[in-house]
Amino acid sequence: MFCNIVAKTEPADILYEDEEVMVFRNKLTWVPVMLLCIPKNHMTQAKLWTDPILAHVGKIAAYLAAEHCEEGFRILSNFGRHGLQSQEHGHLHMIGGVNLGSYA
Amino acid sequence: MFCNIVAKTEPADILYEDEEVMVFRNKLTWVPVMLLCIPKNHMTQAKLWTDPILAHVGKIAAYLAAEHCEEGFRILSNFGRHGLQSQEHGHLHMIGGVNLGSYA
Repeated sequence: MFCNIVAKTEPADILYEDEEVMVFRNKLTWVPVMLLCIPKNHMTQAKLWTDPILAHVGKIAAYLAAEHCEEGFRILSNFGRHGLQSQEHGHLHMIGGVNLGSYA
Repeated sequence: MFCNIVAKTEPADILYEDEEVMVFRNKLTWVPVMLLCIPKNHMTQAKLWTDPILAHVGKIAAYLAAEHCEEGFRILSNFGRHGLQSQEHGHLHMIGGVNLGSYA
């Protein structure tokens, strides 16, 4: 699905885009701000986190989260069954807009 | 406190260390596996996430988390008040060992 958003065959509220990275709103609305930051090239979560591109994806995630969540936020990635990972395409979640509570 | 762990004046269960990065167990025990991955040089969370060092810190975090959490895990950073950030020194949490539930 993320590849379709990159290809713009699937609609999304895109907040940032450059040659390598895209940021768009999650369709979920569990908390007021739910953004996703992805590498445009398809890669797994494990590849994203062990590739030099993580520095760029993480920097853009931090900038956009700070812009949308002035009081603070959480950046996270879920891996595998215990992490409740639902999309294979590597991605960072940026969540905020409310007191997020404990992280575990 | 993290600088004292790096300096080894504060005890910690250190699982990995190289010139730039250290991984140790969190003292909290909210879930079975709670690890921390930090840059050894003091820097803020915002600096960690906007500096090229994030690629190395993230890679080590992903490797160690996979080693300790075969069924999956979550990697995250908390920023500011809404994120419940408690340590100024930049760090990644790696949590797992149990179904982590929803991320928000």
